[in-house]
Amino acid sequence: METISETACCRGRVGFYRHASEVLRLDAKFAVFLPEAALGGRRVPVIHVLAGLTGTEKTFFTKANALRYAAKHGVALVATDTSPRGAGVEGEDGSYDLGTGAGFYLDATHSSWSAHYRMGSYVASELPAFTEAAFPLDGTRRGIMGHSMGGHGALVHALRNPSSWRSVSAFAPIAHPVVVPWGEKSFAAYLGPDRESWKSWDATELLRSGHSHPATILVDQGLDDEFLERELRPQDFETAAAEAGQPLRLRRHAGYAHGYWFIQSFVEDHLAHHAAILKA
Amino acid sequence: METISETACCRGRVGFYRHASEVLRLDAKFAVFLPEAALGGRRVPVIHVLAGLTGTEKTFFTKANALRYAAKHGVALVATDTSPRGAGVEGEDGSYDLGTGAGFYLDATHSSWSAHYRMGSYVASELPAFTEAAFPLDGTRRGIMGHSMGGHGALVHALRNPSSWRSVSAFAPIAHPVVVPWGEKSFAAYLGPDRESWKSWDATELLRSGHSHPATILVDQGLDDEFLERELRPQDFETAAAEAGQPLRLRRHAGYAHGYWFIQSFVEDHLAHHAAILKA
Repeated sequence: METISETACCRGRVGFYRHASEVLRLDAKFAVFLPEAALGGRRVPVIHVLAGLTGTEKTFFTKANALRYAAKHGVALVATDTSPRGAGVEGEDGSYDLGTGAGFYLDATHSSWSAHYRMGSYVASELPAFTEAAFPLDGTRRGIMGHSMGGHGALVHALRNPSSWRSVSAFAPIAHPVVVPWGEKSFAAYLGPDRESWKSWDATELLRSGHSHPATILVDQGLDDEFLERELRPQDFETAAAEAGQPLRLRRHAGYAHGYWFIQSFVEDHLAHHAAILKA
Repeated sequence: METISETACCRGRVGFYRHASEVLRLDAKFAVFLPEAALGGRRVPVIHVLAGLTGTEKTFFTKANALRYAAKHGVALVATDTSPRGAGVEGEDGSYDLGTGAGFYLDATHSSWSAHYRMGSYVASELPAFTEAAFPLDGTRRGIMGHSMGGHGALVHALRNPSSWRSVSAFAPIAHPVVVPWGEKSFAAYLGPDRESWKSWDATELLRSGHSHPATILVDQGLDDEFLERELRPQDFETAAAEAGQPLRLRRHAGYAHGYWFIQSFVEDHLAHHAAILKA
């Protein structure tokens, strides 16, 4: 592991790192915020944060204003990148919503994407294990949250592995990707033409097929979100949750749009939500 | 004035705008955060925020995590750009610390810079007047703060026009630019070879020549700041303040570096400092 930079932040420490990822078969970058309590070596709960399309491991830490609340609750944050970098797949840099910056936190199985585009396993297994070996993080108290593509990533990973992620929340998630343009484009590329195979990476379809999470899922959605109807469809997730008996707190906010101005307005509640579960 | 975008944030509204600046003789962009109270038209106190080298009108709003505290105190924020854009001066895009992104919030008088590089008058007069005509801002309760080059800009403008800026604070300001490389390079370009003429745009030299501000000046400085000794020299400002009887609260923070990880750790205190003065 290479330390790119480390500096004090909110009485804790924010660091940026690079390591050789086994599942991605490429170097990968990630970021870690440790609250003050962890600087002395005490293992603390940790929330993994997943950014949206075009983001990097820096995006959420820089723009979400979350670190002060992680510090307040004594919780660490781990931020992953949004895709492999430099995989060399033809077309990976051709559009903002496929390839670089758009890994969708799933494991590609189709064509040339499958060699490196394995953010699913990276988020589910490799990054938690790697960071919990390198930093004082308590892997038995681990949560996940994210924004847009990353909000969906948080929902999917929590539903696929509820024992691994004890708390989950999302801002403006792409809640039903298999029926929207962003999801159809990326899932067809990464997973191939068989739409049935897409469902295991779709949060709404996971609820429909019997997956659930023991904790209440917190989702915030702005009603002036420019992607709300075309790409996000939280109502599909809401309906599936109601039918499945999945506890869900979906809050709709008039006037708020898709970006980080929305996130920073409500991020305090998300950190409190995770801390209440992880520190219970 | 053209509205580039407006959206809800922290129960208030953040907006980005463009207008034709008379003093810059170019289009200029700025940003305004209005707290909830101002959305109904009530005039609220306002703090102008100045970013550092390479920044824009977006930088402080995005990275400083200040909007939530402006919302809490019912104070508006106005963010300016760091230089004119597209002035066409030879060499203005050749380095990060001169020209574009590096206007130093002063009025150039030398060579071809003097036609457009007039951020001094823009910050002192045009932008406050323009924004106070267009938004419900109370120009009798106006403060100024900034970071690095912008931290110095805040100090200089407050000392040059103490009746215009009732509260002032800075993060890691370039506190004595006439004796450091960043300042020498830009002041020589913008103001010419006569070093005496530089002193009216230098915060430490203004204190030495009898300028002062009635309010306590708040300055935060990280001790792991990579520019501390070579470019910032807060101790010069501290000594000049002590000799001039200028109330100054200079806080030094072990472990903190130059960037926004430092700012976001202490920005709450700055908003409280301004609010206490502006709302007294």
